[in-house]
Amino acid sequence: MKKIYITAIFVLFSTFLFSQKKEKANESTIVEKVRNYRKANEHALLKEYIELLSLPNIAADSLNIRKNAAFIMEMMKKRGIGKVQLLEEGNPLAPPAIYGEVIVPNAKQTIIFYAHYDGQPVNPLQWASGLEPFKPTFVDNSLDKGGKIISYPKENEAINPDWRIYGRSTADDKGGVFAILSAYQALEKSNIKPTVNIKFFFEGEEEAGSPHLGKILDKYKNMLTSDLWIILDGPSHQSGRKQVVFGVRGDVNMSIKIYASKRPLHSGHYGNWAPNPAMQMARLLTSMKDENGKVLIDGFYDDVIPLTTSEKEALAKIPTVDEEVRTDLGFTKPEGGGLSLVELINLPSLNINGMQSANVGAMAANVIPTTATAVLDLRLVKGNDHARQVEKVVKHIRKQGYYIAENEPTDEERLQYPLIAKVNALSGYNAQRTQMDLPVAQQVVRAVQSSTAEPIVLMPTSGGSLPLFLFEKYLNTPTITVGIPNYDNNQHAENENIKIKSLWGGIETVAAMMTMK
Amino acid sequence: MKKIYITAIFVLFSTFLFSQKKEKANESTIVEKVRNYRKANEHALLKEYIELLSLPNIAADSLNIRKNAAFIMEMMKKRGIGKVQLLEEGNPLAPPAIYGEVIVPNAKQTIIFYAHYDGQPVNPLQWASGLEPFKPTFVDNSLDKGGKIISYPKENEAINPDWRIYGRSTADDKGGVFAILSAYQALEKSNIKPTVNIKFFFEGEEEAGSPHLGKILDKYKNMLTSDLWIILDGPSHQSGRKQVVFGVRGDVNMSIKIYASKRPLHSGHYGNWAPNPAMQMARLLTSMKDENGKVLIDGFYDDVIPLTTSEKEALAKIPTVDEEVRTDLGFTKPEGGGLSLVELINLPSLNINGMQSANVGAMAANVIPTTATAVLDLRLVKGNDHARQVEKVVKHIRKQGYYIAENEPTDEERLQYPLIAKVNALSGYNAQRTQMDLPVAQQVVRAVQSSTAEPIVLMPTSGGSLPLFLFEKYLNTPTITVGIPNYDNNQHAENENIKIKSLWGGIETVAAMMTMK
Repeated sequence: MKKIYITAIFVLFSTFLFSQKKEKANESTIVEKVRNYRKANEHALLKEYIELLSLPNIAADSLNIRKNAAFIMEMMKKRGIGKVQLLEEGNPLAPPAIYGEVIVPNAKQTIIFYAHYDGQPVNPLQWASGLEPFKPTFVDNSLDKGGKIISYPKENEAINPDWRIYGRSTADDKGGVFAILSAYQALEKSNIKPTVNIKFFFEGEEEAGSPHLGKILDKYKNMLTSDLWIILDGPSHQSGRKQVVFGVRGDVNMSIKIYASKRPLHSGHYGNWAPNPAMQMARLLTSMKDENGKVLIDGFYDDVIPLTTSEKEALAKIPTVDEEVRTDLGFTKPEGGGLSLVELINLPSLNINGMQSANVGAMAANVIPTTATAVLDLRLVKGNDHARQVEKVVKHIRKQGYYIAENEPTDEERLQYPLIAKVNALSGYNAQRTQMDLPVAQQVVRAVQSSTAEPIVLMPTSGGSLPLFLFEKYLNTPTITVGIPNYDNNQHAENENIKIKSLWGGIETVAAMMTMK
Repeated sequence: MKKIYITAIFVLFSTFLFSQKKEKANESTIVEKVRNYRKANEHALLKEYIELLSLPNIAADSLNIRKNAAFIMEMMKKRGIGKVQLLEEGNPLAPPAIYGEVIVPNAKQTIIFYAHYDGQPVNPLQWASGLEPFKPTFVDNSLDKGGKIISYPKENEAINPDWRIYGRSTADDKGGVFAILSAYQALEKSNIKPTVNIKFFFEGEEEAGSPHLGKILDKYKNMLTSDLWIILDGPSHQSGRKQVVFGVRGDVNMSIKIYASKRPLHSGHYGNWAPNPAMQMARLLTSMKDENGKVLIDGFYDDVIPLTTSEKEALAKIPTVDEEVRTDLGFTKPEGGGLSLVELINLPSLNINGMQSANVGAMAANVIPTTATAVLDLRLVKGNDHARQVEKVVKHIRKQGYYIAENEPTDEERLQYPLIAKVNALSGYNAQRTQMDLPVAQQVVRAVQSSTAEPIVLMPTSGGSLPLFLFEKYLNTPTITVGIPNYDNNQHAENENIKIKSLWGGIETVAAMMTMK
């Protein structure tokens, strides 16, 4: 027993010496080997990815969601990942999470790699000509920069890393699934052992607000023990550099529907007399924000917990990209009264996601609409509570003279109140932030930095939102977010896309983290 | 020759005596005979009407529009109407007008009966469950009052006059085509001679703003001579009484599109910083009207020619229905700062027909939209010029700080101007008003009154719009408008409908005018 003990000590010690000495060389070797594997297998990797992208993946579309899950499970099994299974909380209509694991002998740490395989809802009519959300299409540049659709690359054709693939979830977030599974495959095929136990967790309803994620984490908490969740989601930094993000804003959506006349009216016979709900909505929304984008709702900026000193220092180090991004996006005056983008991301926001009353374009008619609807999203920072933030907006709507109806207003309500709105708070969650100086966080930082020659960006809080508080709440485990796609990926909208270069970079980033020291 | 002359005098004289003596009796006899004919033929009349309603009739859908025209020509030929033909200005894509005539020996006057057979654009998704725009459907009451869909009445089943037919153009304005052709048929089959030469004119692009009507009137002006155009369009009075309308408001549509970022943006990563076009649109629209609905655009109410004394007197006699209509429509506070509906109809208006930015409902996504669009319609009264009224709005938009782009803004424009809008003025035309005391106008008033026991409503100006100035401009002929459908017909919107009772009443109204003294 003693002998065994000494041998073990020796093995460990020599491994330690070796790894210390060769660390630099080893790391570059890993990234190089992974890159070489990818170069030799680009066509096969993309072929499988295109198949995955072709599966419609709206969370509410439970039949197709399960086709996605089955496809991903197959991908995992092909790669020799163990214990591949669906994690379900019981509701057969709820999109399942997918689990798998690779236990590495002697590994001291366990890292769970997360991505989500569902995508934002689509309106195919809004996509550019020639594109369909679930027909992934190669384009030789960004469409905004005059990119042209090109045919699927032939087997002997070199794949230009500046090409893009257009389609729903190319970036958000099947790109994450791709990077995780391709990185593991590249390591495995290159005979490189991960340094940590790896668990895989692919969610199927993130874009729907993760309504069942908490229950799933709770139910499978023994299976889901780890030292850290690494969330593959969100874009890389606008400067093009790789970035590590330590927190996310919270988010809550609300929909406001204003009711006027019960019947749509001829705008000639009744225009000037019957109230117009679109005009009422315009007035209500205008009351919420000033011309500089400052939210005018009482107490909107209260509750915010200020950034720590190290977070402020990190913010100061982030390359300023506001002018380039603004020019690229084609507008003259940002909101925010002169604050920078990273400063504004650390404040709660109120944004109109969509607004509709009757029709515009070919279907426009000379009517006074019956209703007008706006969908808002409120982004939240540390300190905000999603229910409390919604309540501030509701209070503001009441203050503008509105009666808040619980359901479609009854005839009695219609004849009692001059202004009627139905307000629905949709699913929401609070912000989350991991301490930047946790040892495991620093390990991740070093690993990501090892995969790129350029300095990486460390971001205390992403502008985007993920329900990361759930991992703290149910598993008491920190999270770190690493984004893969080009920032101009049209995430959440029509013409979503990812650069091939981002896919390749993502494989290397994940491989570096799977072999982190 | 002399003998013939004396005989002719005698015949004329005795006819005169006879008609003078029997006038009262004759008139009620005519309406009664027409009613009896209708009662005996309700199923056949409705069957043909349902076929007509089943033909999609959007003006831009040139193939289907011509199917409608062919069907109506067939209806006219079956009724023995002469010279049935299409009137076209030359553009094969422009919807043709349909012409026909009945020359009555010894008639001194010629009346042209007008209706339009095209309908407003449709969005089938907005129609109530079970309804489709071009699948005319019987409902046992207004849907708003709990009406239920019923099956097509069987041949031996009594048709309840309170039933409604739901479908596009049931009211606006195939109802007019139906009333005109059914009235002529009822007279003809009852051996009642019209007292006037009748010309039939059915337009096919009224809901598209009648872009070719002027050219058609000009080209066929020798064929289209008459003493009066009677326009069958618009609803009956809200009190349920029949009404004769002497003028119409003008109308011009404009669309405003606001441009912000070139690409749709993730609302988390950029919300608070990237400008939101929906919010900009809300602010712009809010600047146009105050809370009472008063338009705040400089000079908006200038140019208006005041009503004459007899028009003011007529207005005073119109039954006040504001409270009943308001209650029926289910709202508490009308716009207009206390003015009545008929007073407000005699002022120019600004109405939002539709408004959209990105998506709401199931397709809503967490984005900052790239554009926001609003469609306005400006109703015009005597004195307003449509181009001048649009110019006032454009000037107002500029005054709010907007740069008006001629086309999609270029990159240079985007980076030069903080607020960018593209404004399109769509087709428009001015108001028109016929003198109420013209002898032929008084003949029409007497005829319509003869077809109903209740006092009819005389309305100097309808709230609605028709391009009636064209009849003055090209033919120098006055127009009078007579509405058939129930006022709650959802004209121009989803769930358009007509009461069977209104169809029957319309036949009698038109028959009375075709036999007016």
